[in-house]
Amino acid sequence: MSDTEMNGAESLVHTLLENGVEVCFTNPGTSEMHFVAALDHIPGMRSVLVLQESVATGAADGYYRMSGKPASTLLHLGPGLANGVSNLHNAKKAGSGVVNIVGEHASTHIALDAPLTSDIEGIARPVSHWVRTTKGAPTVGKDAAEAVQAARVAPGQVATLVLPSDTAWDEGGVTHAAHEPAMPAPFDSGMLADAAEALDGPECLLLLGGAALSESNLEMAGRIAAKTGCHLLSEWSNARLERGAGRVSVGRVPYPIDIALEVLEPYKRIVLIGARAPIGFFAYPGKPAILTREGADIITLAKADADLTSALEALCETTGATATQPAHVATPDVPQPQHGPINLENLAAVIARTIPEDAIVVDESVTTGRAFSPATKGAAKHTWLNNCGGSIGYCLPVAVGAAVACPDRKVMALTGDGSAMYTIQALWSMARENLDVTILIFANRSYRILRGELTNVGVQNPGPRAIDMLSLDRPDLQWVEMAKSMGVEACRVTDCETLEAAIETGLAMPSPYLIQVDL
Amino acid sequence: MSDTEMNGAESLVHTLLENGVEVCFTNPGTSEMHFVAALDHIPGMRSVLVLQESVATGAADGYYRMSGKPASTLLHLGPGLANGVSNLHNAKKAGSGVVNIVGEHASTHIALDAPLTSDIEGIARPVSHWVRTTKGAPTVGKDAAEAVQAARVAPGQVATLVLPSDTAWDEGGVTHAAHEPAMPAPFDSGMLADAAEALDGPECLLLLGGAALSESNLEMAGRIAAKTGCHLLSEWSNARLERGAGRVSVGRVPYPIDIALEVLEPYKRIVLIGARAPIGFFAYPGKPAILTREGADIITLAKADADLTSALEALCETTGATATQPAHVATPDVPQPQHGPINLENLAAVIARTIPEDAIVVDESVTTGRAFSPATKGAAKHTWLNNCGGSIGYCLPVAVGAAVACPDRKVMALTGDGSAMYTIQALWSMARENLDVTILIFANRSYRILRGELTNVGVQNPGPRAIDMLSLDRPDLQWVEMAKSMGVEACRVTDCETLEAAIETGLAMPSPYLIQVDL
Repeated sequence: MSDTEMNGAESLVHTLLENGVEVCFTNPGTSEMHFVAALDHIPGMRSVLVLQESVATGAADGYYRMSGKPASTLLHLGPGLANGVSNLHNAKKAGSGVVNIVGEHASTHIALDAPLTSDIEGIARPVSHWVRTTKGAPTVGKDAAEAVQAARVAPGQVATLVLPSDTAWDEGGVTHAAHEPAMPAPFDSGMLADAAEALDGPECLLLLGGAALSESNLEMAGRIAAKTGCHLLSEWSNARLERGAGRVSVGRVPYPIDIALEVLEPYKRIVLIGARAPIGFFAYPGKPAILTREGADIITLAKADADLTSALEALCETTGATATQPAHVATPDVPQPQHGPINLENLAAVIARTIPEDAIVVDESVTTGRAFSPATKGAAKHTWLNNCGGSIGYCLPVAVGAAVACPDRKVMALTGDGSAMYTIQALWSMARENLDVTILIFANRSYRILRGELTNVGVQNPGPRAIDMLSLDRPDLQWVEMAKSMGVEACRVTDCETLEAAIETGLAMPSPYLIQVDL
Repeated sequence: MSDTEMNGAESLVHTLLENGVEVCFTNPGTSEMHFVAALDHIPGMRSVLVLQESVATGAADGYYRMSGKPASTLLHLGPGLANGVSNLHNAKKAGSGVVNIVGEHASTHIALDAPLTSDIEGIARPVSHWVRTTKGAPTVGKDAAEAVQAARVAPGQVATLVLPSDTAWDEGGVTHAAHEPAMPAPFDSGMLADAAEALDGPECLLLLGGAALSESNLEMAGRIAAKTGCHLLSEWSNARLERGAGRVSVGRVPYPIDIALEVLEPYKRIVLIGARAPIGFFAYPGKPAILTREGADIITLAKADADLTSALEALCETTGATATQPAHVATPDVPQPQHGPINLENLAAVIARTIPEDAIVVDESVTTGRAFSPATKGAAKHTWLNNCGGSIGYCLPVAVGAAVACPDRKVMALTGDGSAMYTIQALWSMARENLDVTILIFANRSYRILRGELTNVGVQNPGPRAIDMLSLDRPDLQWVEMAKSMGVEACRVTDCETLEAAIETGLAMPSPYLIQVDL
């Protein structure tokens, strides 16, 4: 097909494909019908239908984390985009590249203020690094290529392209070739000597984030730790952390403010590579927001958008650690079989026992999962994904995207019940796409984290109305019925033996499987 | 409690109560914990917990439509607000008053760019008429009173108040008394003579919207129609329409563009009271966006924000219709019992047979419901609510709000399966609050409307990839399991007899009941 015979929608699909965008998470509407038609007759794009747009944007986040490539979303006008905003917030905070395609009314229709008319760019801007409305069919291709380029800026950005429907249906579309991907920013080599000097012994912390948490980069961090005696930590939330036996193990800065302050108190000097200086998730009356000790010397060697591999290589060399055996390498450590009713400790042990080699663990276990990190450090090699934006409902959609990106890997989704309900529609897309996801729902029947937060902000002895606003009982959610209603097989467990057997069942299946874990 | 002993959160709750806000639809988080504490110990506010914020904002919409009073929502930071934006879009288009209370980080914490930090005002603005961030605890009460006043501006507005958490926990809160509600704008009396003259016979249309659709206002419209011979219509989407036997009946401007053009073609003169001149819901290639005949004389006597009762009274008087018997009064017309498999026609007849006196019908039946309006005009007296913003997923949340507003009335929620899945979490809140809602899910296993739209935008013979993006099969949703998973009783019907029996069962229960209607 020559360009002159192409409409704008067709040029969009061709351009996305030429620019390496191969997946589209979508819930289209009337204003996107020409894109649907183009996706229909142009092969190459995998279209995944979702029942609510929060699933589409979360899936694009998970897809990017695991493939390193942006997926597209195809969303219906302002409201369709709005439904996806909270998971775009999470994607933005995780540094995930996403290309949102949002249909808009035809240019001539906007001034009429039809029911679905809204300020789409206004809705997009708070969660997008890049926003543009296409002017006409001939520029759709060029704009789409620039959107992909924007999404690829390290570590990854959210790009939102608004396409009025006449730019889709008008002829004159032109396919645009791939732009060169932008290089990551250089790290701050001027700080190299200071950083190397700062790392001398256990009062020093090397704090890692983003791409510094790959297996090979962690290995360099382990060499530096061995050579200098410094400690290693990662941020509380990591977009992607490689873990397990044989890899250099890093802990996380804890979430509970008092514990975080205690953990960070010893460090007089902190070197940041891809991480930010630790601050509180929330402010609390009378407590500090800066979590590091007063007067700590904080050296930023490389921000998250920089070339973190080069930063670690240079730091390795400057500290003379290039040939040092890495410290903190996790040894295989699989706990014994667990028995009896499930508690937070034996739950962590069962998970450590069952994580399969090369699994992807998507973690939104909130309060239930605080013991998971230490318990699983000697488990089989795996990848661990956290929620970086704090907007709950990230887990199931991100699991969708991770499973689409990595069809040969097992995905385990670990989520609290409150979080899971936010984006429960993801189960249907898992069933439809036959995704290899084993889901553990930690059913504690409450927004348990908020009970602690109520105390943290100084509220003692909450009464029944307050407790009711933080509770998910009355009625209890029936997760097995929920899963089956969307075509996902499921079971419910109350003790460690049946839990472990259920996880094994789920992992053995190539399709999604949900386990209600009663706590 | 004297004002000096009050923190900001307490002054908020007291002020809302003094200003007539008695319900709060909420999903709070850490930044809202002081409000939770205040709601706990200050009696008078009914707090309704929802599992996703789209339910909170939709419920506030439904509550306003049926009570005429704004409810509050209590939402967690930017992402919590963002989840509610699509139903705020619908509320805004419906002219519903809503007071959103959005927690924000403490003022000192915002600059630290914590994970949940976002541009809350930026997220609020596209769907809010009024946005403000409170500066300190002493102004919380005043700002809250002004937010309520803004929400009450006719016909109703969306007001969003952002409260940094230190303004909640700091002492110095001051309760603010109620502001006088703003009066509706006057209608355009200068157009009265023209309007009266324009309405002479069947080439003339009186097009009604908003508050013109109350029982008594419709009666005046009926008198005018009887006296002048003009026709009556309402807009395609009406926030609230009073209908049924004994009331003046108005049809709706049809949604399908070709039928709308045909219906409006005869009218050379159109008088608008609370309605806007009809335009297409979407633009379609080669079809007009203005639905009225070319050269039609359109007279705006009163916009939706005006005093529509006075406009109709004045028009009644000017046309000499004050004592005329109204035309178009619907006579009781209950269809015969229906038999056999369900189709769109007998479905409409069963609904007409079963609507109970004084019921509230929340309609998001999309394609399935196109026969409902004519079929039910002679049913028992009832109130009919449409989706005015076109963002699907409005029905179940609005039904929650309507049921909270009117505990003594039966609510029927009529929704397509695709729409229902958008905000399915509403079922749990219905069960928890024991709301008297009978839900009909029209399970056609597709976004059926989009099949038509694909043709409308000129795409013939869609292929399998396109059809797949518009289909909800693979897997079929199991609505009975879905309902039971959230504590709602349910059944599934495939013929008219069991459908009617199921509706009677649902209506007889004081609690929610879901019926999967297989089509």
